[in-house]
Amino acid sequence: MKKFMDDDFLLESECAKKLYEDIASKMPIIDFHNHLSAKEIYENKNYESITEVWLGHDHYKWRAMRSNGIEEKYITGDASDKEKYMKWCETVPRLIGSPLYHWNHLEMKRYFDYDEPLSPKTADDFYDKANAKLKEDDFRPRELLTKMNVVDLCTTDDPIDNLEYHKKLDGEEKRFKVRPTFRPDNALNIISPDYVSYIHKLEEIAGGKIETYGDLCEALYSRMDYFEKVGCRFSDHSLELFVYMPLYNVLDEINEETTYAMLNDTFRKRMSGEAINEIEAMTFRSTLLLSLATSYYHRGWTMQLHIGALRNNSARAFNEIGKDAGFDSMDDFSYAKELSGLLDDLHNGGLLPKTIIYNLNSKDTAMLATMIGNFQNEEVRSKIQLGAAWWFLDHKRGIESQLQSFAESGVLANFVGMVTDSRSMLSFPRHEYFRRILCNYLGGLVENGEYPYDEEELRVIVEDICCNNIRNFLE
Amino acid sequence: MKKFMDDDFLLESECAKKLYEDIASKMPIIDFHNHLSAKEIYENKNYESITEVWLGHDHYKWRAMRSNGIEEKYITGDASDKEKYMKWCETVPRLIGSPLYHWNHLEMKRYFDYDEPLSPKTADDFYDKANAKLKEDDFRPRELLTKMNVVDLCTTDDPIDNLEYHKKLDGEEKRFKVRPTFRPDNALNIISPDYVSYIHKLEEIAGGKIETYGDLCEALYSRMDYFEKVGCRFSDHSLELFVYMPLYNVLDEINEETTYAMLNDTFRKRMSGEAINEIEAMTFRSTLLLSLATSYYHRGWTMQLHIGALRNNSARAFNEIGKDAGFDSMDDFSYAKELSGLLDDLHNGGLLPKTIIYNLNSKDTAMLATMIGNFQNEEVRSKIQLGAAWWFLDHKRGIESQLQSFAESGVLANFVGMVTDSRSMLSFPRHEYFRRILCNYLGGLVENGEYPYDEEELRVIVEDICCNNIRNFLE
Amino acid sequence: MKKFMDDDFLLESECAKKLYEDIASKMPIIDFHNHLSAKEIYENKNYESITEVWLGHDHYKWRAMRSNGIEEKYITGDASDKEKYMKWCETVPRLIGSPLYHWNHLEMKRYFDYDEPLSPKTADDFYDKANAKLKEDDFRPRELLTKMNVVDLCTTDDPIDNLEYHKKLDGEEKRFKVRPTFRPDNALNIISPDYVSYIHKLEEIAGGKIETYGDLCEALYSRMDYFEKVGCRFSDHSLELFVYMPLYNVLDEINEETTYAMLNDTFRKRMSGEAINEIEAMTFRSTLLLSLATSYYHRGWTMQLHIGALRNNSARAFNEIGKDAGFDSMDDFSYAKELSGLLDDLHNGGLLPKTIIYNLNSKDTAMLATMIGNFQNEEVRSKIQLGAAWWFLDHKRGIESQLQSFAESGVLANFVGMVTDSRSMLSFPRHEYFRRILCNYLGGLVENGEYPYDEEELRVIVEDICCNNIRNFLE
Repeated sequence: MKKFMDDDFLLESECAKKLYEDIASKMPIIDFHNHLSAKEIYENKNYESITEVWLGHDHYKWRAMRSNGIEEKYITGDASDKEKYMKWCETVPRLIGSPLYHWNHLEMKRYFDYDEPLSPKTADDFYDKANAKLKEDDFRPRELLTKMNVVDLCTTDDPIDNLEYHKKLDGEEKRFKVRPTFRPDNALNIISPDYVSYIHKLEEIAGGKIETYGDLCEALYSRMDYFEKVGCRFSDHSLELFVYMPLYNVLDEINEETTYAMLNDTFRKRMSGEAINEIEAMTFRSTLLLSLATSYYHRGWTMQLHIGALRNNSARAFNEIGKDAGFDSMDDFSYAKELSGLLDDLHNGGLLPKTIIYNLNSKDTAMLATMIGNFQNEEVRSKIQLGAAWWFLDHKRGIESQLQSFAESGVLANFVGMVTDSRSMLSFPRHEYFRRILCNYLGGLVENGEYPYDEEELRVIVEDICCNNIRNFLE
Repeated sequence: MKKFMDDDFLLESECAKKLYEDIASKMPIIDFHNHLSAKEIYENKNYESITEVWLGHDHYKWRAMRSNGIEEKYITGDASDKEKYMKWCETVPRLIGSPLYHWNHLEMKRYFDYDEPLSPKTADDFYDKANAKLKEDDFRPRELLTKMNVVDLCTTDDPIDNLEYHKKLDGEEKRFKVRPTFRPDNALNIISPDYVSYIHKLEEIAGGKIETYGDLCEALYSRMDYFEKVGCRFSDHSLELFVYMPLYNVLDEINEETTYAMLNDTFRKRMSGEAINEIEAMTFRSTLLLSLATSYYHRGWTMQLHIGALRNNSARAFNEIGKDAGFDSMDDFSYAKELSGLLDDLHNGGLLPKTIIYNLNSKDTAMLATMIGNFQNEEVRSKIQLGAAWWFLDHKRGIESQLQSFAESGVLANFVGMVTDSRSMLSFPRHEYFRRILCNYLGGLVENGEYPYDEEELRVIVEDICCNNIRNFLE
Repeated sequence: MKKFMDDDFLLESECAKKLYEDIASKMPIIDFHNHLSAKEIYENKNYESITEVWLGHDHYKWRAMRSNGIEEKYITGDASDKEKYMKWCETVPRLIGSPLYHWNHLEMKRYFDYDEPLSPKTADDFYDKANAKLKEDDFRPRELLTKMNVVDLCTTDDPIDNLEYHKKLDGEEKRFKVRPTFRPDNALNIISPDYVSYIHKLEEIAGGKIETYGDLCEALYSRMDYFEKVGCRFSDHSLELFVYMPLYNVLDEINEETTYAMLNDTFRKRMSGEAINEIEAMTFRSTLLLSLATSYYHRGWTMQLHIGALRNNSARAFNEIGKDAGFDSMDDFSYAKELSGLLDDLHNGGLLPKTIIYNLNSKDTAMLATMIGNFQNEEVRSKIQLGAAWWFLDHKRGIESQLQSFAESGVLANFVGMVTDSRSMLSFPRHEYFRRILCNYLGGLVENGEYPYDEEELRVIVEDICCNNIRNFLE
């Protein structure tokens, strides 16, 4: 029996251990997709308590607690910090087989040097020790990032964000770089009730009236210029119901004002409160996505597509607690043809940016692993990528399956690797978790005679997946 | 090489063996979903022969025999018992990797103490021995159930069933409880050619005219009252093509007669032989499902949803042999949004009953494992459940995958566990099969350092999944 | 650590080794679905270079090279043979976890007795050695086939092919049989821009005007007669978007000219350049598929269905490079009901031929494994088959999953086994790859106590899957 989460955690062969210990564990972290707050990093304040850090925003833990029959009062309600923490400790031992069990204990080990399993029995002891440590100077956000060897991280930001704290950090913090990511979902989501007010905010920050589709593009391009100055190299889109129906193909020439009559009409109707139909909305979204993607290409940015979430399933919880609170799940629609259409339209025009596609439903992993292979070229190795196992797939089996699918249908050595996708400052051991699983997979192939024990080549592969491939994408 | 199906069958680590031998194997069985006949249990007669027991109703075996090229005559036709049995014995050695191979041999071992593999070579020997044993007193249904440590079982029954034998058993049999399950598929299936005559039978048994939607609900509620008196705690629905389109949201107040005009109109048309369209039929079914679910909630019942069967694929076989005869398979439609809509409508009104969702297509397991997490609360731990691997997924890999999905996205320790879903009195070793796989999974996590070796906590988890969780649901 | 790809490659237990070494490795190869050229086999010329053999037509390798950032010039462009080869050698070490890595090295070992891993370091050495060997007499196509113990192979051919080289081979080559396969996709694809000219070519070779649906069927039947004389026993269909909507059911009597008015009308419109709508096209294709399948049944042929490819995703690549050049991927549509309808219509009329269904998207494997079970009978064991893991699924995990699905829902011992589906004369070690994985799976079950160590029975199963089952289908 292996010791619980010891140094060889998840490393089942000698080769796996060697790859992890000698190589992967020593590589810096480039966390190119997360939901951290630049403000929180900039201000660099100590946290109040382990409850704030662990349970303040973590909808994964909230969901687990609800599934364990915990009352909402102890989750997002008005119970005390200690009460909430105790309810979490009561839930933890039930989480056998859950990635949360591993994440939680990796965080205890790596940040707090605490090796006992968390349970009601150890709850008080860890509470006191953790809270004491959290008061120390080196338990502030920037020190925590440095401790984890993070050298570059990309937050997720709306085009109307002023990036005040990214800019301040850029001037001050030399140990790591905090970059914004351009996520224009609100600008695309023309059917949202908040769309008109959003566009007005965009007008204000971009400076200048937005009366046409072209104006909207220009405003977004000007925000991209702004983002770029603060180090942005990535965009991100959440594609929930993916129907792709662009005007692109019927237009004579892109950017030619006259051809945009239809889009302008749709936009004008929406801004003046007239109804638009589904086809108008979809055409608008699809064409705007194309226009933005074209600009990503010209800037050398990477486009990220997150496909397949079904969000806010509980109307009651949405009204009472809000979004991103643990009421989302996988959707199960099909989208191979639509995605192919989007990528093909861009590729056909020589305008396809580097792209990373993340799927939320595991049934789509194999399809995507083959889809990316249709649009590769010499611009960069594996220019189109299957992203790291996302959200509900971010667990041992999900990570293994993503790696296997990438390897079976593509060139795994070119994979850009892991992201935390997290709102928590303590989530960086997820890179360790990923790297252990990666090394276990690669080492297992070697142990099993499926790949030669070529130290030099294996080193290159591990370093590439941990760091070098994403560095190429960032440049 | 491990011995064929010895005591450590499927138990690959010391921890797994310990969990199974010390804990799981000793837990009683609550088989809360099966298709056993209460009459057969009540009458408690000896079986004629092993052929009757094994091949009388078992469409799993029939399918396997057809797939092995056996003529229908030897399956459901007029061949002799011995001939049929011999054809089965000819098929068995071909079933390498099939759960039927394991089920068959577990049945031979546990009921007949027979350890040799079944094949044409051992066929005669086992035939004689089994048939001799079947004549013994302790080989009658009730004794077989007792021998397997069954303490509670739920059959599957139509609202028009009079539950005569459940009631008789309730008075007489103290060793185990036989409960009915309320399965109103026939009342919902308004497009069935038999619908009108079914409603007339329901009128008769419920007592009173059924002329409106409200009458129909009342008749079904009165049958629920009746079922409840005989110990019913579960309902069950087969959702084959799942399109959800309720009237619920547009109605001012539920149960208000006047608002049901549309449903009444649909019902009236159907009963008088007028055509109804697809939307009317779907609205009717969806709303009736909501009405029934609301009643399940008030009664503290658990609602079971079986989603994704494509039944009676062969018109020829359906005409010649009938339904439930081995001509069904997985369907592959998508239904995340529809299911979310159903659960949300109920949850929004505070009327969502405890629910267990079973999927037939493995592509849906991960989606469902995340869907259930949207509607949990403090009423009971993991109130919404991903059911045990169902039918075509009820095999080693399917069970493992269901356990993993539950653990990865929920709280596995709260899983309500296994059901036989069987028509055969000899199928109870499937609980042993499940428990071995469960203990092997849990033990494997411990052996691999993924969970601490905490005997107390592991005991609680195993006991909960084997018995205690479902006991909470039954109460 | 196991040695890299040694004699025990992929064989993880003693039983697996024994099954492979003593049985599977000795069985001849019947490669009943591939894309080899009968002309190339007949002419039996030496190849120019390893580049021609490896990179001449292999879109798997092309895709891998593109994914590794190689410029098209070195893939399908005008770079020299040596340059292209070197780019491949640069790509190979990056292919950890890819089936291409294993295929490549199996080819080096089995054809060239070369055991070193291919990389830029060994590139020159292998290039010289391989090219030298390729000049030898026993490195010509027919000798390579003989060396691999191929006794029967089925190419893939259009009804308008004259099969000249099949006929010549039939007279001359005694060591193995080269059969054509009837693949009438072009005759079914009524919406193709090339349809009219195709029909004219068919008229020419079949002899006689094609003016009606009946004429078309007759022309195709006459081509089937022709194919049959050259040894054809298989047909093949690629079903890309599978919507099934036959006229069959509404017709009084099949083959009755008058009832075909609608089909004739559709055909006439298409041939005269008038537009046809989607429903007409789909009805035409579906009914023609039924008519052809009926004829397959009468001939005792086996119908192959390849379902789920999304081809030519890149318009740019299609224009510049053409089809079958590495720009295809998995589609993700649903088709359980449609497939069930097709099989049921045929089965209902007693006209369902032996059928092998191959899926490209792994999400469909489990569904198909259950679907085939609905239509089995005594004509031949497992008359309806789930085909070997196809194309993007043809890797270790894909093969294992196909075997497991077949075993879990059917009778694996009746599986007709592996095909190369390849355009390359050197791809026959893929049968070895498959057989190793098969024996590892079966041996693993025995080692794990899940199947008894019955040497005789295991021998029968291995021989059946390797050879005997497909022999029954060929007869």
